[in-house]
Amino acid sequence: VSEPLRISVLGAGNWGTTLAQRLAKNGHAVQIWSRNPDKCQEINEAHTSRRVLPGVRLADAVRAVSDLGAALAAPDLILIAVPSQSFRALCRALAPWVRPEHQVVHCIKGLERGSHATMSEVLHEETCVLQIGVLSGPNIAAEIAADKFAGTLIATRFPRIAALVRRALSCAQLRVFEGADVRGVELCGAAKNVIALAAGMVDALELGANAKAFLLTRGLYELTRLLAAAGCDPSTALGLAGCGDMMVTAISPLSRNHRVGVALGRGIPLAQAISSIGMVAEGVYAAESVCALSRAHALDQPLFEAVARVLREEATVEQALATLRELPTRHDVSRSLRRPA
Amino acid sequence: VSEPLRISVLGAGNWGTTLAQRLAKNGHAVQIWSRNPDKCQEINEAHTSRRVLPGVRLADAVRAVSDLGAALAAPDLILIAVPSQSFRALCRALAPWVRPEHQVVHCIKGLERGSHATMSEVLHEETCVLQIGVLSGPNIAAEIAADKFAGTLIATRFPRIAALVRRALSCAQLRVFEGADVRGVELCGAAKNVIALAAGMVDALELGANAKAFLLTRGLYELTRLLAAAGCDPSTALGLAGCGDMMVTAISPLSRNHRVGVALGRGIPLAQAISSIGMVAEGVYAAESVCALSRAHALDQPLFEAVARVLREEATVEQALATLRELPTRHDVSRSLRRPA
Repeated sequence: VSEPLRISVLGAGNWGTTLAQRLAKNGHAVQIWSRNPDKCQEINEAHTSRRVLPGVRLADAVRAVSDLGAALAAPDLILIAVPSQSFRALCRALAPWVRPEHQVVHCIKGLERGSHATMSEVLHEETCVLQIGVLSGPNIAAEIAADKFAGTLIATRFPRIAALVRRALSCAQLRVFEGADVRGVELCGAAKNVIALAAGMVDALELGANAKAFLLTRGLYELTRLLAAAGCDPSTALGLAGCGDMMVTAISPLSRNHRVGVALGRGIPLAQAISSIGMVAEGVYAAESVCALSRAHALDQPLFEAVARVLREEATVEQALATLRELPTRHDVSRSLRRPA
Repeated sequence: VSEPLRISVLGAGNWGTTLAQRLAKNGHAVQIWSRNPDKCQEINEAHTSRRVLPGVRLADAVRAVSDLGAALAAPDLILIAVPSQSFRALCRALAPWVRPEHQVVHCIKGLERGSHATMSEVLHEETCVLQIGVLSGPNIAAEIAADKFAGTLIATRFPRIAALVRRALSCAQLRVFEGADVRGVELCGAAKNVIALAAGMVDALELGANAKAFLLTRGLYELTRLLAAAGCDPSTALGLAGCGDMMVTAISPLSRNHRVGVALGRGIPLAQAISSIGMVAEGVYAAESVCALSRAHALDQPLFEAVARVLREEATVEQALATLRELPTRHDVSRSLRRPA
């Protein structure tokens, strides 16, 4: 048995807390940071975090702190799991505490509004951290917290980070795969939430399994084209962070983005659909950024655009889905995986 | 409005009958062939085919014949939708009637047992037909018969066939896409049924959405590797015939292969699982062929092999799924889409 690692998890939402629990069960020393002292007290004293993981008893080894400096006392690995729109502010708060030799992995599936930056771009802009990675994949937190089986992906250019994450998280119930396409994985994470919104709309309108599979396939096609145009490895779209995560989001009733899509499809206004979820649905923010990146690469991406129009309240769900029925049918996906000449 | 086409549909199962109905609704003259005179009489007189499409009234323009020569009187297009294991016998019966200038499209998702041949290979071996195509995609027949929206794919090297199929089948509710990778689409059709069996097993064991998405992703990865190794276009796996059809099979309770997988996962013996479906579940036959083709290309395909072991009754479902938990995790899918050097 190897030495326990000292791991800091920044963010005590349902994914950060689930990761902290897995790390503690794997025998590592975990500090989880939340800016909320009451939440820290609940974790440290009651060993629960009922709002984000109802019914789960947290391991004693999960220790919570609300002081960022304390959370970062000599960690072997830093995991960050906060909403994408809070990420830059956290990076700024982090900057005085981190050093170039720190290993930082973010676990966020979104892009920054306005700048359309990926989380690794924001991390590089705001801190001196050099060695970074992204954790992604079909990982519904509640299932992992309940010790159900899952596969996840660590994408990084740094073998040491991949090895650390595998050592930290791997167990019989969580298998950690490796990839190198950081930006490709980040774009997958953002785009799959947009596709999940569309899948929820199709479900709300009861269009059937053929229509849903058609829409998911077209979504995967648009995602793959985006990766190719952006200079990423298009085959990343086929893997756990792309197709895998898109599928889990489309089939699980626990997916937030899918639930927001269902609500929109039932005619519930966006603000109400979001507040009924009680957690951040990243796809609502990501849609504009995914469309903007697509346009920047001169791509026509009718599915992403259709979702964005619904979110802007420029189109009803029926109107948006009607445009998808009228897609040019000349070609299927062939050649989509080659980079444009 | 263009002239109606004269179209022969060979095979009056639920897919052949659904296609005939769509063609008739689109204004074409349809002859559907069944070797069963009673079924022909039911179609011609009652305008139903209750065993395969319960509750559906067939269009008057769907005419059934049990004489193969009569079915093939001067068609503009021949569609074949019989079970894969009956296909060679039908081709032999067809051989005296077809001519090199005929256009033939098969709509079959399977491989021939023993030879592992695709349906287009069998058609070329047994007839003089030159211009062929394959129709595939996420197309649950009952949904299409109920006029629900779907996308489908015609793969062919012959633009005239693609144009004919688009003219014959396209409508607001059925969008026909084009591809050229005939063999790739045929391998997708066979392999996705094997993956569907595995997805059904995961559902029966209630392993959760993360596990199911993981398994589907690994299945798509094995399929993509097979296409690349077999000289097909690996991006076909991303399209309607690959990922699209895999997803519909995994999410629809109407999918036969998925239902057989669920039954096996509940410990029901194979023979009973098959007979409870009342229709052919192609994946049961395809598993050995997909494994044999993979081995012929020196590929290690643990998911396909695991399903085959369950079907051979060499492993329980639990044992088979346990091997998938122990897959090497070193790499995700990156580079899987490049052909081996």
